[in-house]
Amino acid sequence: MRLATIRTATGTRAVRVEETDAVELGHADLGELFRRPDWRAEAAEAQGRRHPVGELDYAVPVTSPDKVICVGLNYRNHILEMGRELPTHPTLFAKYTGALIGAYDDITLPAVSSAVDWEAELGVVVGRPLRHASPEEAAAGIAGYTVVNDVTARDYQYRGAQWLQGKTFEATTPVGPWVVTPDGAPEHALSCAVDGEVVQRASTGDLVFGPADLLAYVSEIITLLPGDIIATGTPGGVGHARTPARYLTDGAVLTTTVAGVGECRNVCRSAK
Amino acid sequence: MRLATIRTATGTRAVRVEETDAVELGHADLGELFRRPDWRAEAAEAQGRRHPVGELDYAVPVTSPDKVICVGLNYRNHILEMGRELPTHPTLFAKYTGALIGAYDDITLPAVSSAVDWEAELGVVVGRPLRHASPEEAAAGIAGYTVVNDVTARDYQYRGAQWLQGKTFEATTPVGPWVVTPDGAPEHALSCAVDGEVVQRASTGDLVFGPADLLAYVSEIITLLPGDIIATGTPGGVGHARTPARYLTDGAVLTTTVAGVGECRNVCRSAK
Repeated sequence: MRLATIRTATGTRAVRVEETDAVELGHADLGELFRRPDWRAEAAEAQGRRHPVGELDYAVPVTSPDKVICVGLNYRNHILEMGRELPTHPTLFAKYTGALIGAYDDITLPAVSSAVDWEAELGVVVGRPLRHASPEEAAAGIAGYTVVNDVTARDYQYRGAQWLQGKTFEATTPVGPWVVTPDGAPEHALSCAVDGEVVQRASTGDLVFGPADLLAYVSEIITLLPGDIIATGTPGGVGHARTPARYLTDGAVLTTTVAGVGECRNVCRSAK
Repeated sequence: MRLATIRTATGTRAVRVEETDAVELGHADLGELFRRPDWRAEAAEAQGRRHPVGELDYAVPVTSPDKVICVGLNYRNHILEMGRELPTHPTLFAKYTGALIGAYDDITLPAVSSAVDWEAELGVVVGRPLRHASPEEAAAGIAGYTVVNDVTARDYQYRGAQWLQGKTFEATTPVGPWVVTPDGAPEHALSCAVDGEVVQRASTGDLVFGPADLLAYVSEIITLLPGDIIATGTPGGVGHARTPARYLTDGAVLTTTVAGVGECRNVCRSAK
């Protein structure tokens, strides 16, 4: 089941996206839906107003998540090829909601940064409150998967020891277009392309800490709430690590794909 | 003017705290109040239901801030005494809302950490949207000041390069009891005591990046929204830097004071 939040003339709507139509579910966004204990049955059965899929304007699936949690250093091959040891605990950092954009929205390249880079990631959306969850409980608490590009201003990321300021520039981080409820396929091919040239390619099977492990880990620290978004980390191939370094420029088209989940396609635009 | 959010039998209420009474302002919390463009006049003039100050149960002043932004390495004397150079840019990291507690609530010492430490800080609350703000515009956008203790699990903070996980344990971070609107006194004496013994003492005049500079800086990255909370950093005297290191234990009383602003008093309780 593919669930999304779309923009309409009268505000956002949570929808179930079918082959030809999207069907309204009676909630303003997926966050509101996921806070209902019985949301899976409700979403599967709802028969609200329909919208042709060709006319959908996708918002961020959860418009105001309580938490956006990002994971660093989480692809095995990339860590090993850098000559580092595999980590024993996840590296976590945050992003604020204002950084998020819809799956086809323009990415705003900040005027103050000259080093905006891509990071294709599998996103996980939480479907029930999780506190001190085992990995099995955490797996059952996953609402579904989505696509994220953790677009990063490298110059700001490395201004000090903490990455936050490079990670949370306004309107930089595509999420969507939908949340796909789990179908039992644990591995997804992930890729990122700039102007059609593939720059990252990996499998989520290579994650050091998988989605359920990450949710269980975070739930020891703080309660995960329905609609929380976890970006699970990016593999090798980012522009900053190239020689010479390569960054996103005005007009560049960034395509982020997670096979079996979805694809974001975003045009980069310099801030005025 | 002192503004707070209190808990009542029928939910939270924004109030103006006067000498003997707190007066309801007609909003569920200060975040809702601060989103109104004319909130200063509204708060000054409201004449709602009254509560004796001795009976108030203080909630976090803004119950669901869009952002909690923390600043590291921001007290000049402490940086210089550590032999470091003064930073040219602020160090920023995040905390999630679930970490916040009211001014007199118990601090939950997580079962998984054995190194929970104090960090007394001046908190700044945003009073209007700020984007690409000058320091002057940012200063005019400050709703007021509050008291924060950025209680930190040092073992989790240093598990990897990113501090977030040590900073955002559930129910660890007192904020309050109120937000004091600016009165033109730019410097405040700040102190922290454990079981009555003063462990930190400094003046906010020693901040490398003051409140207006911090807000202006963040507003280049992302829009600050009414109710956003900025914890401006802590001076020397934390328990982790002592020999031997000293941490918070079950039953310890943590008192965090910012002269002219307010005081939080919290008892530490081990998680069950």
